[in-house]
Amino acid sequence: MIEDWSTARFLDELASGNATPGGGSAAAVMGSMGAALVSMVANLTIGKKGYEAVEPQMKQLLAESEALRKRLAGMVAEDIAAFDSLMAGYKMPKATDDEKAVRSAAIQRGLKAATEAPLACARACAEGVRLAARAVEHGNLNVISDVGVGVLAAWAALRSAALNVHINAPQIKDRAWTDAALAELKALLDECGPLSERIHEQVKAKLG
Amino acid sequence: MIEDWSTARFLDELASGNATPGGGSAAAVMGSMGAALVSMVANLTIGKKGYEAVEPQMKQLLAESEALRKRLAGMVAEDIAAFDSLMAGYKMPKATDDEKAVRSAAIQRGLKAATEAPLACARACAEGVRLAARAVEHGNLNVISDVGVGVLAAWAALRSAALNVHINAPQIKDRAWTDAALAELKALLDECGPLSERIHEQVKAKLG
Repeated sequence: MIEDWSTARFLDELASGNATPGGGSAAAVMGSMGAALVSMVANLTIGKKGYEAVEPQMKQLLAESEALRKRLAGMVAEDIAAFDSLMAGYKMPKATDDEKAVRSAAIQRGLKAATEAPLACARACAEGVRLAARAVEHGNLNVISDVGVGVLAAWAALRSAALNVHINAPQIKDRAWTDAALAELKALLDECGPLSERIHEQVKAKLG
Repeated sequence: MIEDWSTARFLDELASGNATPGGGSAAAVMGSMGAALVSMVANLTIGKKGYEAVEPQMKQLLAESEALRKRLAGMVAEDIAAFDSLMAGYKMPKATDDEKAVRSAAIQRGLKAATEAPLACARACAEGVRLAARAVEHGNLNVISDVGVGVLAAWAALRSAALNVHINAPQIKDRAWTDAALAELKALLDECGPLSERIHEQVKAKLG
């Protein structure tokens, strides 16, 4: 399991000439780091003097950010599985018309899986940005910069996942499916770009 | 050593209520992922058909991105050491005037160290953005999205490091030192913001 690799090994494998882990896996890890930093801020707000009034919100936020963090970490493996399934499709025999038809259908399924995986990652990263918006409002001022790093990580991860959606989308023949996927992606980017910048500005203002 | 922790453990510790690892460590890891993705693209360009003409540039790029990747990974520990040294200053005795003077000097040294660490990280991340600019020009088109994720990671890491510079800078009494640090930081942000966006646009154009 890739999550059991040391950070040093993950970076070695990312840098290597192997196709995976690549940008899709990096996006999932960045997204998970974003959620983790929201959790950190919630953890350092709960039980702290002066923050009693926001404790219920912070506990709710922590539950959501922890679930999201684990979901995003799991997406590293999902990204690699989707890539492998697409590659397996390309390697199928294509000597006869029957084989060609079976292979083509498998590739189309693989392309959808390899598009759905980063789309799910983008969706989760958008959730991370929204959690950061709650963290910056009520989080402990002593660690408010960590909300800033969290939202920068979540937003970079969302944009990274978006690039990965665009790799395979053009080859998918089911245009209705692809158009819906790209429309959803665009809505996430349109929402989270300005929201991320706003959170970043709030963090800078609170840092003084 | 934190680099030997599994990715899962790093994320657990990031999310926890411990002050470190926090946003500073996350910035260094993101920056290192950015450099790793430049290395990946260089590795997948060198020796590939159609890319013979750019092989010397790609080998040079790889040498630089690998050195940078390792330097940034090492900055996780440097960030934590700087934080610990500052905390040690705050914990020094302050019963007498002599003790107060010694403690105050130690805190000032700690504040500079805790500002210099993220500034060094920001400087290294800017280098990562510049390496991505070279990767997008000549890198293998099949993995060009990985340059995009790389530059998004490097730029988010630079902005994250910048937030960490701003935490302690206001309390440093040596204003000439601080002004120089903040001016350098501003120059890095002013250079790399537009450059990152330009690289991102180039990646999207090449993805079709």
